[in-house]
Amino acid sequence: MRSLLKLWAFTLLAVAVEAQRFVRFISTDGKEYTGDAVMPAGVTDASKSTSAKVIRGDILGDFEITDTVKPIRTLLAPIAPERVRTVRCVGFNYIAHAGEANVTIPEFPILFYKPWTALSTPSDPIPVTSGYQTQGNFTSKMDYETELVVVIKKAGSDIPLDQALDHVLGYSVGHDVSHRGWQIERGGQPQPQYSMGKGADGWAPWGPAIVSTDVIPDPQTLNIWTKVNGVTMQNETTANMIFGVKELVSFFSMGITLLPGDVIFTGTPSGVQLGKTDPVWLVDGDVVEVGLENVGTCTNALKYV
Amino acid sequence: MRSLLKLWAFTLLAVAVEAQRFVRFISTDGKEYTGDAVMPAGVTDASKSTSAKVIRGDILGDFEITDTVKPIRTLLAPIAPERVRTVRCVGFNYIAHAGEANVTIPEFPILFYKPWTALSTPSDPIPVTSGYQTQGNFTSKMDYETELVVVIKKAGSDIPLDQALDHVLGYSVGHDVSHRGWQIERGGQPQPQYSMGKGADGWAPWGPAIVSTDVIPDPQTLNIWTKVNGVTMQNETTANMIFGVKELVSFFSMGITLLPGDVIFTGTPSGVQLGKTDPVWLVDGDVVEVGLENVGTCTNALKYV
Repeated sequence: MRSLLKLWAFTLLAVAVEAQRFVRFISTDGKEYTGDAVMPAGVTDASKSTSAKVIRGDILGDFEITDTVKPIRTLLAPIAPERVRTVRCVGFNYIAHAGEANVTIPEFPILFYKPWTALSTPSDPIPVTSGYQTQGNFTSKMDYETELVVVIKKAGSDIPLDQALDHVLGYSVGHDVSHRGWQIERGGQPQPQYSMGKGADGWAPWGPAIVSTDVIPDPQTLNIWTKVNGVTMQNETTANMIFGVKELVSFFSMGITLLPGDVIFTGTPSGVQLGKTDPVWLVDGDVVEVGLENVGTCTNALKYV
Repeated sequence: MRSLLKLWAFTLLAVAVEAQRFVRFISTDGKEYTGDAVMPAGVTDASKSTSAKVIRGDILGDFEITDTVKPIRTLLAPIAPERVRTVRCVGFNYIAHAGEANVTIPEFPILFYKPWTALSTPSDPIPVTSGYQTQGNFTSKMDYETELVVVIKKAGSDIPLDQALDHVLGYSVGHDVSHRGWQIERGGQPQPQYSMGKGADGWAPWGPAIVSTDVIPDPQTLNIWTKVNGVTMQNETTANMIFGVKELVSFFSMGITLLPGDVIFTGTPSGVQLGKTDPVWLVDGDVVEVGLENVGTCTNALKYV
């Protein structure tokens, strides 16, 4: 009996030290904290949490969850942008999205990068500077892309498939803001590279939390959606990803060291404006909500600056 | 006469505080230093310098050149890789290179990225891991690309053309190591992205120094070359760049903040193996020298690991 009690106590302790939803936030005292979001009963969207247990230490290394609870005033990107080392992104990773864009199913993951300076918060506006606005015949083709985001916690290269998830801290939702004019018409000829259409400052909002692999043991079972001004535009499941999280982590580490704090935007489902006969591009003031089941939402407005 | 003497003294002082060739190196005491390379008379290749005046402080911020001279045992990358924030690269930026690859002249610079983990030294081997070696019908098409490298010293976005060079610390030479199989055949279908063919660890040797804009006021006048096992393979001038340094710095800052320590690999001249009828790909042990006039050389051997 005594040993059973001990086992029970040990289990409680083990659960207590696992963070569920890592958030970074400004509290009502104006200071910045990292925390484990306190979730109201029945709520799984971390953007709806109003307080968090303060975390001491580094969520990418050693840390502890304290008993100090602080109110959340503003959620920030779950990791400070300047601490993220490399932002990897995947093109055409959902079958229906490849179909709507009229491209064949990729045989290998299509990798591209965003500079870390693109990373932004779950609520900040998405700036559209003059170079990305309509100028004469060149139309500002701003499009949304909601994506499951993987956060790496453990360094490694040539990571085998069956060890890939051991390198993952957790999952967030991100917005791969995309300018189709610069991505395809201008930045894409004669040798298409997505870089110029996706890398502007603030064009990668993410958050609202990093939800741990304890809470989400299988990332390929989650609903993922987009709403533009409240209207649902994308609505699929991560089960439809061509290359899952395991495959991406393993593949992208081929001769390449993935580092703690690296993030991977894993591609967007169908429903974007690219490929539509009568696309309705995002314009100044449009509000985009990107959402992922059991993770939450980021809600960012386009802002011409 | 006294004021003339004063003017002369002032000029000497002003010259004395301008670094010419920033190097980072291991000295004979086994310690790492940043320095201003001491160049033997008539020598402009910083890889031939054997000592440097130690620099105190941060070459991306405030620093001073001391009178302490230290012997150079091994030159490192001029900035520690982990301090480089973003590595931008340019595709098809020399007319003859676009021609040999059978692509039309780009209307806008073609931007892609390497992860900073690819950055390496002027002498370390270039590792080729199993995923990049020949496997059955998939040939290891390792190719060289020598490039002028721009180092940013001053942050800015939407930088006007006529101010672009004010943001530049100086110039290096770099090797954009490229695997054409992953770049084009596998990483490039159906939506070509160069990322998988160019981003492996150690696939961006650079150095041997950052040569200041005082020494090189006009970067579009420099001979640039490659030797493979001593045989000249590329030999052009940066005058042939389609988009010059000014244009690239200005263009890449469109809605994007360039930061101190960002580097830009500005594209390779003609003479690579890509596009040849009978290409001779690099193999284990091949020694590649990449060179830039008034800057120097990096010499790195391919190493199957």
